[in-house]
Amino acid sequence: MKIKVVVAGARGRMGSTAIEAIEKSSHTETVAALDYKYGGLHLHKGTVNNEGIGIPIYTSMSELMSNHAVDVLLDVTDPDAVFNNVQDALSHGVRPVVGTSGLSRRQVDEISVLVETYRIGCIIAPNFSIGAVLMMKFAAQAAHYLGDVEIIEMHHDRKLDAPSGTALKTAEMIQHSRPAHLQGHPDEQVHLQGARGADIDGMKIHSVRLPGLLAHQQVLLGGEGELLTLRHDSFDRKSFMPGIILSIRNVVTREDLVYGLEYLID
Amino acid sequence: MKIKVVVAGARGRMGSTAIEAIEKSSHTETVAALDYKYGGLHLHKGTVNNEGIGIPIYTSMSELMSNHAVDVLLDVTDPDAVFNNVQDALSHGVRPVVGTSGLSRRQVDEISVLVETYRIGCIIAPNFSIGAVLMMKFAAQAAHYLGDVEIIEMHHDRKLDAPSGTALKTAEMIQHSRPAHLQGHPDEQVHLQGARGADIDGMKIHSVRLPGLLAHQQVLLGGEGELLTLRHDSFDRKSFMPGIILSIRNVVTREDLVYGLEYLID
Amino acid sequence: MKIKVVVAGARGRMGSTAIEAIEKSSHTETVAALDYKYGGLHLHKGTVNNEGIGIPIYTSMSELMSNHAVDVLLDVTDPDAVFNNVQDALSHGVRPVVGTSGLSRRQVDEISVLVETYRIGCIIAPNFSIGAVLMMKFAAQAAHYLGDVEIIEMHHDRKLDAPSGTALKTAEMIQHSRPAHLQGHPDEQVHLQGARGADIDGMKIHSVRLPGLLAHQQVLLGGEGELLTLRHDSFDRKSFMPGIILSIRNVVTREDLVYGLEYLID
Amino acid sequence: MKIKVVVAGARGRMGSTAIEAIEKSSHTETVAALDYKYGGLHLHKGTVNNEGIGIPIYTSMSELMSNHAVDVLLDVTDPDAVFNNVQDALSHGVRPVVGTSGLSRRQVDEISVLVETYRIGCIIAPNFSIGAVLMMKFAAQAAHYLGDVEIIEMHHDRKLDAPSGTALKTAEMIQHSRPAHLQGHPDEQVHLQGARGADIDGMKIHSVRLPGLLAHQQVLLGGEGELLTLRHDSFDRKSFMPGIILSIRNVVTREDLVYGLEYLID
Repeated sequence: MKIKVVVAGARGRMGSTAIEAIEKSSHTETVAALDYKYGGLHLHKGTVNNEGIGIPIYTSMSELMSNHAVDVLLDVTDPDAVFNNVQDALSHGVRPVVGTSGLSRRQVDEISVLVETYRIGCIIAPNFSIGAVLMMKFAAQAAHYLGDVEIIEMHHDRKLDAPSGTALKTAEMIQHSRPAHLQGHPDEQVHLQGARGADIDGMKIHSVRLPGLLAHQQVLLGGEGELLTLRHDSFDRKSFMPGIILSIRNVVTREDLVYGLEYLID
Repeated sequence: MKIKVVVAGARGRMGSTAIEAIEKSSHTETVAALDYKYGGLHLHKGTVNNEGIGIPIYTSMSELMSNHAVDVLLDVTDPDAVFNNVQDALSHGVRPVVGTSGLSRRQVDEISVLVETYRIGCIIAPNFSIGAVLMMKFAAQAAHYLGDVEIIEMHHDRKLDAPSGTALKTAEMIQHSRPAHLQGHPDEQVHLQGARGADIDGMKIHSVRLPGLLAHQQVLLGGEGELLTLRHDSFDRKSFMPGIILSIRNVVTREDLVYGLEYLID
Repeated sequence: MKIKVVVAGARGRMGSTAIEAIEKSSHTETVAALDYKYGGLHLHKGTVNNEGIGIPIYTSMSELMSNHAVDVLLDVTDPDAVFNNVQDALSHGVRPVVGTSGLSRRQVDEISVLVETYRIGCIIAPNFSIGAVLMMKFAAQAAHYLGDVEIIEMHHDRKLDAPSGTALKTAEMIQHSRPAHLQGHPDEQVHLQGARGADIDGMKIHSVRLPGLLAHQQVLLGGEGELLTLRHDSFDRKSFMPGIILSIRNVVTREDLVYGLEYLID
Repeated sequence: MKIKVVVAGARGRMGSTAIEAIEKSSHTETVAALDYKYGGLHLHKGTVNNEGIGIPIYTSMSELMSNHAVDVLLDVTDPDAVFNNVQDALSHGVRPVVGTSGLSRRQVDEISVLVETYRIGCIIAPNFSIGAVLMMKFAAQAAHYLGDVEIIEMHHDRKLDAPSGTALKTAEMIQHSRPAHLQGHPDEQVHLQGARGADIDGMKIHSVRLPGLLAHQQVLLGGEGELLTLRHDSFDRKSFMPGIILSIRNVVTREDLVYGLEYLID
């Protein structure tokens, strides 16, 4: 029997791609869309219609549940909507898989309490790319042996923030596997401010922004006489789909909160 | 108390570098060199002398053992000498750490029997570079999720064999974590023979040989919309030293045979 | 005054992107589309309509010319249509810029004769990416000094042919700047067929095909103790637009045939 | 007839390698070493001897010239010695090829005056690696078309200064071929100081320092939908030898001052 999924954020590009992926998998199916408007209409290939083509749209979880059996809520909405959606899902016995970033620490804590109360699984993953998560995990493991690390993340020049969230998360994971220490020559002379990048416990992060680029990151780990480079290139949002399907299939088997795709990957 | 090490192959470049590394570590010390000639002389910084400077040279393990307490034999000799050295060491209760490649499967089997008989540890590692071993381990893990793989190994143009031993070993490790399958377009048309590289179960291996290069390898793992690249650059034989020290420290704690540095690394 | 352009192949993805780019440039404008059907209708954002929105569609150059002043024909059709379109354009005094590949040598020769007869410019460019052309030009220049070369081209796994056209063109350009010679160790032993790639005059070409990849190429040039790598990544067909605009602006100033964007770039 | 070369700085590692290269070339030969000490002794494979083996050492150019015909002085000394050596050479009609860095602008100006007075050639090259110079030239040419540029230079962690001299020189050459302009998003928010690197006219420079690295640089040039990367890896000082031989052969044909190997390369 297929896992029944409701998608919040289904009209967006990530939502459309996710619905395609859920339909394509032999383990999952979409039963409805949760939206803040268009209740009563249908959604087909990203377009809303009133001819009953595609999946039905609901504006409340209660109404949705009274018409459909649902196992999992996939939320790819925005920071404003996600928290209520997850609370609603948990209170209706629906397991959330959350790809929306922007949940505050307090909100995650509240979700954690709800998960313990209801004893149903919930997965929150800031990054659904299995490749990116492998890069981060490997970097943390390798830093145990090759403790001098620099991160170069490269994105298109319309990106607003630097460093990227993935670079910061990578650095955080590496911090747990190596002691903080000075890198580079102790008497280093920097003649142009910023040349040596941002510093986190001695690790350096460099952010490249150029037209043409998509989303790329390299982690460089140096040892005496050798260099290990872990690089991830993200070319298309399709790269998030295997991580989403993996999470949907995993969440139905668990009764706890998982924060980060890395815990689902050996 | 420091681990007492005897080095076979001490006059070579790898041996000299290893002696330096063993002396530098606070956990290990060199007590003697095992050689097929120069018995009775001494070795200092790669040069043999009869003035008693450096470590004493012996041509037999028995004689060596009658003069020194020894914990570990580090063998960096050649395919002709290594097998006898290891047998001698095991029969004298000395734990071998073998960096020499070229042991046949039959020889390794015989060593395995001896190790079980004497119940003392032995480590054989075709590649002592921790960075290279991490690359191979990570590649095998990642291939579980990103199953389409190509390996590009790049070496100086004086290298005789292609593909490299490390590339073949990497492919072998990946074979265990993904099913064999056709890669590329099923109707692929190759207009110039060899363009698509060597094939192992669908995986492709490409060998680049150019003046200037040292020893480099990339493993490329592709998934829908993303690419994970694991790259190792070996610039200097010093990169083997941490793996050698790790093995020496590890072998004294064990009673079995380990084939491959990867089993010592989490 | 803007250069007046008619686009053949305007309904395709390349054509749509080109029309946008031509409209965006302050030097060019689109006046009509040349098509084999839909004559009398209009084209707007890739969609044909009969409401007169967008540019008018014509099925013959004569009729088109009787209604519009035209300077340049941009042809991004297919191997079947391109030759007639170019002949028609030249005979009507319209300068062709051809991005369609697949013209035979004989057809190019015939076009060359027409160009000489009419004394009006024509540009045929198999690759309109300025970045790719720079890579090829630089590779040819550098091979004069660093004569040992290997090419690694990497594409998505739906690509049918190997090596890529760009790799073959690059090799051809390099052939003119270095003497053919054996690369690698003269006694090289290849244990797995194909490992050393395809061979052109000693140069090696390696074709990587993986899901996730788009279109990428590296040219590696080795010298004693050093390596020069020229890499081009093509992420989007928008990368062809600057080359198309450059060609349109250039063709109106000339009276000869140019084959290859490299001749327009210093 | 071979070009007769005297080497200053002959006892250093660069000097020794240069003497080997000069001897190996069929166009050049070494006739003597200019040194501040060891006058009257000989130099062979980097070692001074009083048995007359190798090339004779002189402490003054006058004395050297009274015993040998000399065409070219190769200076690979240090910032303290180089200026006097060059002045001496010019006044004796010997053409200098200078690989020592650290000449001040004023000193170069004075040398320029001397060169004009004596009308004999002089070549000063801060970087004799042809590969590195090609990378810089190509970067400057490409920036004309792909005007958004970032430089990533990577060196071992014993390097004192950042950014590297080569990175600064590359940026300077690029400045001449593109207008200064803001790169990245105009509203960019940098959450960790230094993440976006050092800034030169909008261009960014990132300096990576890790154990294991040697000397590497990448220039990334981005355009809409594409990226061009020019990378140079310097693995060994042998990479400077072709540039030194090229300069020696070139300087004997000229009567002016050339500053930078790039002017000798097409």
